[in-house]
Amino acid sequence: TRSFKIAAIAGDGIGKEVLPEGLKVLEAAARRFNIDLEFIHFEWASCDYYLKTGDMMPPDWKAQLSRMDAIYFGAVGWPATVPDHISLWGSLLKFRREFDQYINLRPVRLFEGVPCPLANRKPGDIDFYVVRENTEGEYTNLGGIMFPGTEREVVIQESVFSRHGTDRVLKYAFELAQSRARKHLTVATKSNGVAISMPWWDGRADAMALGYPDITVDKQHIDILCARFVLQPQRFDVVVASNLFGDILSDLGPACTGTIGLAPSGNLNPERSFPSLFEPVHGSAPDIAGKGIANPIAMIWSGAMMLGFLADAPDAPGGCREAHDAILAAIEQVLREGPRTGDLGGTATTVEMGDAIAGLL
Amino acid sequence: TRSFKIAAIAGDGIGKEVLPEGLKVLEAAARRFNIDLEFIHFEWASCDYYLKTGDMMPPDWKAQLSRMDAIYFGAVGWPATVPDHISLWGSLLKFRREFDQYINLRPVRLFEGVPCPLANRKPGDIDFYVVRENTEGEYTNLGGIMFPGTEREVVIQESVFSRHGTDRVLKYAFELAQSRARKHLTVATKSNGVAISMPWWDGRADAMALGYPDITVDKQHIDILCARFVLQPQRFDVVVASNLFGDILSDLGPACTGTIGLAPSGNLNPERSFPSLFEPVHGSAPDIAGKGIANPIAMIWSGAMMLGFLADAPDAPGGCREAHDAILAAIEQVLREGPRTGDLGGTATTVEMGDAIAGLL
Ligand SMILES: CC(C)[C@H](C(=O)O)[C@@H](O)C(=O)O
Ligand SMILES: CC(C)[C@H](C(=O)O)[C@@H](O)C(=O)O
Repeated sequence: TRSFKIAAIAGDGIGKEVLPEGLKVLEAAARRFNIDLEFIHFEWASCDYYLKTGDMMPPDWKAQLSRMDAIYFGAVGWPATVPDHISLWGSLLKFRREFDQYINLRPVRLFEGVPCPLANRKPGDIDFYVVRENTEGEYTNLGGIMFPGTEREVVIQESVFSRHGTDRVLKYAFELAQSRARKHLTVATKSNGVAISMPWWDGRADAMALGYPDITVDKQHIDILCARFVLQPQRFDVVVASNLFGDILSDLGPACTGTIGLAPSGNLNPERSFPSLFEPVHGSAPDIAGKGIANPIAMIWSGAMMLGFLADAPDAPGGCREAHDAILAAIEQVLREGPRTGDLGGTATTVEMGDAIAGLL
Repeated sequence: TRSFKIAAIAGDGIGKEVLPEGLKVLEAAARRFNIDLEFIHFEWASCDYYLKTGDMMPPDWKAQLSRMDAIYFGAVGWPATVPDHISLWGSLLKFRREFDQYINLRPVRLFEGVPCPLANRKPGDIDFYVVRENTEGEYTNLGGIMFPGTEREVVIQESVFSRHGTDRVLKYAFELAQSRARKHLTVATKSNGVAISMPWWDGRADAMALGYPDITVDKQHIDILCARFVLQPQRFDVVVASNLFGDILSDLGPACTGTIGLAPSGNLNPERSFPSLFEPVHGSAPDIAGKGIANPIAMIWSGAMMLGFLADAPDAPGGCREAHDAILAAIEQVLREGPRTGDLGGTATTVEMGDAIAGLL
């Protein structure tokens, strides 16, 4: 049967600690469900590699990774040694663009056993997806500085939105909402302040909505939308947003469910012309790196998302969907019964959490 | 003694309901502390006026308002009748720019008696200021659309930051932090994604920090910063942000303290070359407008902020600072003991809340 080649990239900081736990769980699931997963390890796309070679990645990185079915990614970035425009723009943000991973899919869910920072919220109250545009929008290095270094300095920052890029993320979000029970879509904009691009986004959402008459669509300004994540999280089902607004909402959402140490993400190229990338939402976390105390669940859940995505490939072997479900069930059980890492109020190590989840498979 | 001329502008929606309560309380305070406040009412800067005249304001609006010592403003905007680029850009956003109200000051405080949406937070845990740049940055209608209406459509949105505009808001925030016990300043940026303007903002903050060695400065990306408003609100003291990021944080912060129905704001021109404007953070709230159930506290607290600002004028008469403190104390007492509007879980009307607070003065 068909095998899957997975690029395993640890990156920096706690990426190196959580990736092995993710692999442990994926290997356990692969054994149990008889899936042929082959992991190919890459040392690059890390600041270590940059400090050794002067580049974040080798010149043939794209050819090497294009042969993979997916990329399983830890975290990249190591403050004070390598600047963001090298570390992030030279790896993660490059993957998103060059592999046209135009959907950043980020589930937000409150689990049993996880202390919720919001008062009076029960598991089941919070269960939605943030669908973030992942290739264009506010994330650019376009623009520049006039009269640099002087009192007269003026800085222009340009955002770029295309109809192609906006419509495809809206379409993905409408389809996702369509597949869910509540069929509710929230569109994050800021058309009253950001006066060119955001009214235009609203217009694209309105146009797309005509094709989905059974979906209720709610356009909300990003300011009040953030407030409602805290005040009324139960009202959300699918939330679609630009690159920047999606970035904000997909940290805020997980925070409302207790910890960003759980939040996974899929950087998806739905057409599968390029490999998709699965990574925790948290970064390299220099403050706790090297201590072996990071929560590996975001990494492990990202692995489950990867199997779920591979399961939908036209020629996927059986077992991937079952493996996804089994990993999710194991995560739920461990969150209910322990062990717990520090971010969840416990004292377990990264390895103990990984062992506990792998042990349930 | 010197009198103060205050422009009273109700605007739209619940602005018309909360403004009278604010005036009631200010008048009670003026009587008690013997302050000479003169209110001049303007019907314009409202959608009603626009629908009657075709303009949001008369041609001499600037001359009329320039004679005022401050502007006490309800809310503007009435969806579906007048588009934002007319209603908001033709009044509120115009005031902010033409009167160079470059500081938008927004206190975030958890009060006794207000149900907090965050678990296990007590009054005193949340008490900080958001200092928002209020004239430039992401709020522009600069840019445009290439190939409009076609599949090839590309939209450019430009943000504009000047050293002048950035340094003065940073300076205000550093000075505010300096005046407070904890002397802690958080700078909101997103330098890893928004790659021209935000690293530059970071640089301006670093440069300014050299002059304030006793202040601890913490630069945070807007995504994780929003998460921390929910997870660790006690760590904030003064937060400084660009126009858009400040907008987001100053809705999210009040949401974390229970309701945006309490949140006041001052649109300040610290040099007093132009009148400053004081308004609730909430908008015209079409969903509850006309029902008499809006919480007037944000309006009343904004009035207190106005007196506090006027108290610092070089030639201010005595009593303004005392009046500010007395209104705050009355707000605190009513929040503790009732009555309460619907947003606070009660059934009181707008007028009942206003009467209760005015009655304590
Ligand atoms: C590291 C950073 C560039 C990245 C982003 O802003 O996209 C991260 O915050 C994320 O959400 O994946
Ligand atoms: C109404 C809108 C333009 C305004 C803003 O975004 O500044 C409001 O949200 C605010 O925060 O004062």
